[in-house]
Amino acid sequence: MDLMWISVVAGIVGIGIVAYFVRYVLRQDQGSKEVREISSAIQEGAMAFIGREYRTLSIVVVVLAVILAAVPELGWRISVAFIFGAVCSMGAGFAGLSVAVRTNGRTCAAAQKGLNSGLRVAFRGGAVMGLTVVSIGIIGMAILYFAWHESANFLAIIPAYGTGASLVALFARVGGGIFTKGADTGSDLVGKVEAGIPEDDPRNAAVIADNVGDNVGDVCGMGADLFESYVESIIATMTLAMVATAIGAVADFSAAWAMPMLIAAGGIFASIIGCFMVRVGEKLEMSALLGALRRGTLGASLLTAIFSFLVIYFLADNLNLFWAVLAGLLAGVLMGESTNYFTSYAFKPTQEIAETSCSGAGTTIIQGFANGMMSTWPPVILIAIAIAVAFHFGSFYGVALAATGMLSTLGVTLATDAYGPVADNAGGIATMAGLPEEVRERTDALDSLGNTTAATGKGFAIGAAALNSLGLILSYALVTEIISISATGAIVVAQPGEFNLLSAPIIIGILLGALMPPTFCAMTMKSVGVTAKAIVEEVRRQWREIPGLREGKKEVKPDYGKCVDICTKSALKQMLAPSIMTIVAPVIVGLVLGKFALAGFLLGALTTGFIFAITLNNAGGAWDNAKKWIEAGHFGGKGSEAHKAAVTGDTAGDPMKDTSGPSLNIMLKLMSVVSLMLAPVLMHFTGLI
Amino acid sequence: MDLMWISVVAGIVGIGIVAYFVRYVLRQDQGSKEVREISSAIQEGAMAFIGREYRTLSIVVVVLAVILAAVPELGWRISVAFIFGAVCSMGAGFAGLSVAVRTNGRTCAAAQKGLNSGLRVAFRGGAVMGLTVVSIGIIGMAILYFAWHESANFLAIIPAYGTGASLVALFARVGGGIFTKGADTGSDLVGKVEAGIPEDDPRNAAVIADNVGDNVGDVCGMGADLFESYVESIIATMTLAMVATAIGAVADFSAAWAMPMLIAAGGIFASIIGCFMVRVGEKLEMSALLGALRRGTLGASLLTAIFSFLVIYFLADNLNLFWAVLAGLLAGVLMGESTNYFTSYAFKPTQEIAETSCSGAGTTIIQGFANGMMSTWPPVILIAIAIAVAFHFGSFYGVALAATGMLSTLGVTLATDAYGPVADNAGGIATMAGLPEEVRERTDALDSLGNTTAATGKGFAIGAAALNSLGLILSYALVTEIISISATGAIVVAQPGEFNLLSAPIIIGILLGALMPPTFCAMTMKSVGVTAKAIVEEVRRQWREIPGLREGKKEVKPDYGKCVDICTKSALKQMLAPSIMTIVAPVIVGLVLGKFALAGFLLGALTTGFIFAITLNNAGGAWDNAKKWIEAGHFGGKGSEAHKAAVTGDTAGDPMKDTSGPSLNIMLKLMSVVSLMLAPVLMHFTGLI
Repeated sequence: MDLMWISVVAGIVGIGIVAYFVRYVLRQDQGSKEVREISSAIQEGAMAFIGREYRTLSIVVVVLAVILAAVPELGWRISVAFIFGAVCSMGAGFAGLSVAVRTNGRTCAAAQKGLNSGLRVAFRGGAVMGLTVVSIGIIGMAILYFAWHESANFLAIIPAYGTGASLVALFARVGGGIFTKGADTGSDLVGKVEAGIPEDDPRNAAVIADNVGDNVGDVCGMGADLFESYVESIIATMTLAMVATAIGAVADFSAAWAMPMLIAAGGIFASIIGCFMVRVGEKLEMSALLGALRRGTLGASLLTAIFSFLVIYFLADNLNLFWAVLAGLLAGVLMGESTNYFTSYAFKPTQEIAETSCSGAGTTIIQGFANGMMSTWPPVILIAIAIAVAFHFGSFYGVALAATGMLSTLGVTLATDAYGPVADNAGGIATMAGLPEEVRERTDALDSLGNTTAATGKGFAIGAAALNSLGLILSYALVTEIISISATGAIVVAQPGEFNLLSAPIIIGILLGALMPPTFCAMTMKSVGVTAKAIVEEVRRQWREIPGLREGKKEVKPDYGKCVDICTKSALKQMLAPSIMTIVAPVIVGLVLGKFALAGFLLGALTTGFIFAITLNNAGGAWDNAKKWIEAGHFGGKGSEAHKAAVTGDTAGDPMKDTSGPSLNIMLKLMSVVSLMLAPVLMHFTGLI
Repeated sequence: MDLMWISVVAGIVGIGIVAYFVRYVLRQDQGSKEVREISSAIQEGAMAFIGREYRTLSIVVVVLAVILAAVPELGWRISVAFIFGAVCSMGAGFAGLSVAVRTNGRTCAAAQKGLNSGLRVAFRGGAVMGLTVVSIGIIGMAILYFAWHESANFLAIIPAYGTGASLVALFARVGGGIFTKGADTGSDLVGKVEAGIPEDDPRNAAVIADNVGDNVGDVCGMGADLFESYVESIIATMTLAMVATAIGAVADFSAAWAMPMLIAAGGIFASIIGCFMVRVGEKLEMSALLGALRRGTLGASLLTAIFSFLVIYFLADNLNLFWAVLAGLLAGVLMGESTNYFTSYAFKPTQEIAETSCSGAGTTIIQGFANGMMSTWPPVILIAIAIAVAFHFGSFYGVALAATGMLSTLGVTLATDAYGPVADNAGGIATMAGLPEEVRERTDALDSLGNTTAATGKGFAIGAAALNSLGLILSYALVTEIISISATGAIVVAQPGEFNLLSAPIIIGILLGALMPPTFCAMTMKSVGVTAKAIVEEVRRQWREIPGLREGKKEVKPDYGKCVDICTKSALKQMLAPSIMTIVAPVIVGLVLGKFALAGFLLGALTTGFIFAITLNNAGGAWDNAKKWIEAGHFGGKGSEAHKAAVTGDTAGDPMKDTSGPSLNIMLKLMSVVSLMLAPVLMHFTGLI
C-alpha cells in the first residue's frame, strides 16, 4: 500500500475534529441581544469583504490560469494545479473566517460562566482555522500526488499548487493588511480631527470595520500565509527528492516524496492532541493562561519530534534527516519566543521604550526602531544554525525538510494565532455591549493573551517564510539545472563561472532583489495611509449628515457597512501595484538578466525581506505593548505625556507590524514559487549581462 | 620617468591651493566681538573633541599595529602602512576641521558685505577639507608606491594603509555622529523637561556643543569617510591589476597600477578648477546659489571625464575602461541628485510628509519611513547599472576603476559638503550675536544651500562606500585565491562547489552579514539617546546651580565646555561596542566559517547596509526638511499641530541621518578592507561548515 494514504487519513481525521469543534462552538450560547447585534455586524462585514475579495481573486486566478496554460512548456495540468491550490486556500480561509466571526460573541457569553469556558470557546474557534489549513493542505497535496505522480512533469505541477495558494495569500495578507490597518488607523485618527469621536465609540462608523479587520487580517491573512508556507515546504522537499537519493539518505524517490507528507501527517495528529491539551483554571493570571497555550504547542512539538523520528527510522537509511527536522522544529519554537521577548511588556526592551516615551515621541520612535533592528539577531542566528545543521545532515533536501519540520505543528500554532483576534473581538464586544466588569476582566485577560500569541505567531510565520523561501530557491536552482547533485551526493555547478557569488549577474541580481522588500513595504505602508484617510472622511460625513448620530440617540446607528465597503474597495485597489510588482519582477529578471541572476535576485530579496520583516514586526509590536505598559499605570499612565508619545509609536508601528511586515512573508515565497513554477521556461535564459 | 610622479605633482598643486585658500580665509575680517567670542568657543570645543579623540585613537592604532606586526604572514611593513594611513587621515581631518571652525565667524562678517563674499569665504573654508583629503590621500599612496612597489607583498601592504584610514573614519563618523546628535537632541529635549530653555538660547549650555557637533560630524566625519573611500578605491583597483592585464585592457602591471592614480590626479586638477568656478551674484535665490555650486561640481565632473579619457587613451590598449570610469562618475552625480529629490522640500516626497503631518506624528513617521524605503530605488539601480557596465568593459578591475571614477571629483564634491556646516554655524552665530536682519537673511540662504549640498553629499558618500566596498570584496576574493583570472580573462573559481551562491557557507555568510548593519544601527541610535540624556541632565544642573543663569544676567555664561566634554566622553565610550563588533566580526567569520563564508558575509552586509544607509539617510533628511517646509509657512506654519508632528519626525530622523546611516558607510568599508588586509592569513581557512 502507498504510504501516502496515511497523510490522507490524517487530513480526514483533522477535518473530523474541525467538524467537532465547529459543532461545539455553534452550540454555545450566543449571548445577549447587544452582543448578537454587534457580532452579526462584524460577521456581515467580514463576509462582505471576503465575498468581494474572492470575486476579484477568482478573476485573477482564471486569467493567470489561461496564461499558464498557453505557455508552451507548462501545459494544462499546471493550470489545473494552480486553480486547485487557489481553491483549497480560499476554502480553508473561508471556513476559518466564518467560524472565527461566529466565535467572538459566543466567547463573550462563555466568559460570563468563567475564564476556562471563555478560553475553550475562543481557542476552539481559532483551532478551526488551524486544523482546516493543515487538513485541506495535506489532502490537496495527496490528491495531486495520486492523480499525477506518474506524470513526467509531476515536479513541475506541484509548484503550481503552491503558486495558487500563494496568490490567495497575497490577497489575504496584503489586502487584509491594508483593510485592517486602514480601518484601525482611520477610526483612531478621526478623533484627532473631529472632536468627540473616540476610537471605540459605537457612533464611530469605522468601529465595526476595525473589528472586521482583526478577523480578515489576523485570521484569514495569517491562515492563508501559513497555508502557503505549509504546502510549499512539502512541495520544496518533494522537488528536492533526487538530492535525498543522491546523498544516500533514502533508497528511492517514493520514500523521499512520502517523507514530508508523513511528517506533516504526524504533525496533524500531534496538533490535534495539542489542541485538547489547552485548558486553564479560573485564576486570572497571565502566566497560567500562557502556560495553557504553551502546553498545547510544546506538547505538539514534542509529539511531532517523536512521530518524525519514527517516520525517518522506518523510511530512511539512517537518522541523519531527523536532525534536519529537529533543527527546523526547534528554530520555529525559539523564534516565537524571541519575538515574545522583544515585544512583550514583560521584558526589558519594551519597558525601555515605555521609559523613553517620557522624553517625547521622537525618542520613542528611535528607541522602538532600534529595538526592532536589534531583534533581528536571534531569528537570523537561529535560521542560520538550522540551515547549517540541515545542510550538514541532508544537503538541499535537509533544508527543505527542516522547513517541513518547522511547519508540521502548524495545526496547533495557527490555532493559537487565530485565537488572538477572536479574543480581541470578544473584548471589544464586551465593552461595546456594556457587559459586567468581571466578564470584561476575563475577556481582557483573554485578549492580552491573544496579543502574546499573535506576536509569537508572527515570529514563527516570518521564520517559516524565510526557511521555506530558501527551500524553494534551492528547488529552483535544481530544476533550472544551475546546480545538480552528483552520484556521490556532492553539489555540482553547471557553469561555475556564472554561478559564483561574485559574478556580475549574481551581484546585480542580489542588489535588485534586495530592493524589492523595502519598495514593497513603502507601497503597502502608504496604502494604509490612503485607506485611513478615506475612512476619516466617511466617518466625518456620517457624523455631519446622519441626524441624531452626534447626539448619540439610541435608535440612530452609523452606517457601519459603508466603512467596511470603503476599506474593502480601497484595500483591493491599493494592493494592485505591489502585487503586480511581486509577480512580474522575478519573471522579468529571469527573462532579461537570466536564470543565474534570478537566483541572486531571490536570495537578495530573502536577505533584506527577512531583516525588514523582523524589524518592522517587532518594532511595531513593541510600540503597541509599550503603550499598553504605560496604560497599565507606569510612567504616568493613561493621558500622560509619556502615553501620548507612546500612542504615536503605536500609530507608526501599526502598518509596520500588521500590513507591511507580514506581507513580506508572502512576497518572498510568492517570488520564489513563481520562479520555481516557471523554471522549465526560465532555464533557457542565461541573460544579457 | 615613472608616470606615478604626475600624481605627486597633482597632490602638491592641491596642497598649494589649500595654502592659498587658508591664507585667503584667515585674512578675512573676524567680525564683531560677539561673533569672535562665539566662534572661538566653537573652536575650543572642536579642538577639545578632536584632541581627546585623536589621543584615544592613537592608542588603538598603536595596539593594533603591534598586533599586526606579530601576525606571521603580515610583517612590519603592513604595520607601518597601517600607521601611515591613520596618520594621513588624521592630518587631513585636523587641517579641515581647524580651518572650518575658523571660517564660520568670518563667513558672518563677509556676509555683511554681500552674499557672494559670504559664499566665497564659506566655500573656500570648506574647500580646504576637500582638497586636503585628496592631496594627502594621493601623496600618501604615492609614497607607499615609491617605497615598496617592488616588495613581493606590495599588494598586501596597501590595504593596511586603507585600514588605517578606515579606523580613523570609524572614530570620526561613529564618534562624531554620536557627539553631534547627542548634543543636538540633548539641547533640543531639555526645553521639553525644563521650561524656559529653548534649543538655541545662549543660556542653554549645550548650544556650543551642538555647533561643535556640526563640525566634528559633517566636516571631520564626512572628510574621514571620503578619505577612506578615496584611497580604498585606488587600493582596490591596484590590487586587481592582474585582472586588467589578463583581460588585455593594459599591457603590464605598472600601467594598471598607474591608471587609478592618474585618474585621481586628473580629478584633483579638475576639482581645483571646479572650486574656482563657484561664484554667485547678489540675488537671494536658492536656484542661483545652487547653480553656483553645481557649476563647480559638474564642471569638475566633465573635466575629469576628459582627463580620464586621455589617461586611458595613452595608457590602455583600448577605450573599454573609459566606459567603466564614466559609469562610476555618472552614477555618483546622479545618486546625489536622487538624494536631493527625496529629501529636498522643493519636491513632492518631502512635501507629502509635511502634508501628512496634519494628521499627527504617527502618520508623519509612516510617510517619512515609507519615503526613505522608496528612495532606495534610484541609488540601487544606478549602482547596479554602473556595476553591469564596469564588469562588461573591465571585469573586476572595471568595477574598482568605476569607484575611482566616482570618487575622482572628491576635491570639489567634498568642498560643497564641508561648506554646509560652515554655513550652518555662520547662521547660528549670526542669530546668537544678533546681527542685522539682512545679514541673517544672507546666512540663512547660505545655510539652506548647505542643507541641500549635505543631502547630495550623503547620497554620494553612500554610493561611493557601496561601490568601493564591492571593489574591496572582489580584491579579497582574488587575494584569497577563491577566484582567479585565466589567461583569457575569464573568471575561474578555485573550488566551484564551495563558492556557488547556494552553498551552505555562502548562504549562512550572507545571512550573518545581513545582520550586521541593523545591529550596528541599533547600537549607534541607542548611543545617541544615552548621550542626549547626559546632556539634558547637565544643562538642567547648570540651570539650577549657576546663579543668575536662569535670569539671563549679561555677564553670566553657562559652562559650555562641560557639555562638550560630556559629549566627547560619551561618544568615545559609546562607540566602543559597535567598533569592536565591526573589526572583530569579519575576523571571526573568516577564522571559524572560512574564507568562502566571509565573502558571503561581506556581500550580505553590503546588501542590507546599502539599503539601510539610504533608507535612514533619506527618511531623516526628508523629515528635517518637511519640518522646514512647514516652518516656511505651509500647513499652519510654526507652532501648528502639523509643525509639532513634523518636529517629532525630525527628532526621530536625526540619529538616523547623522549617526547610524553615515556610520554604515564606514562599517561596510572597514569590514571589507580588514578582510582584504588579513587575506594572506584568512586564505588558509576553509571553515567548519
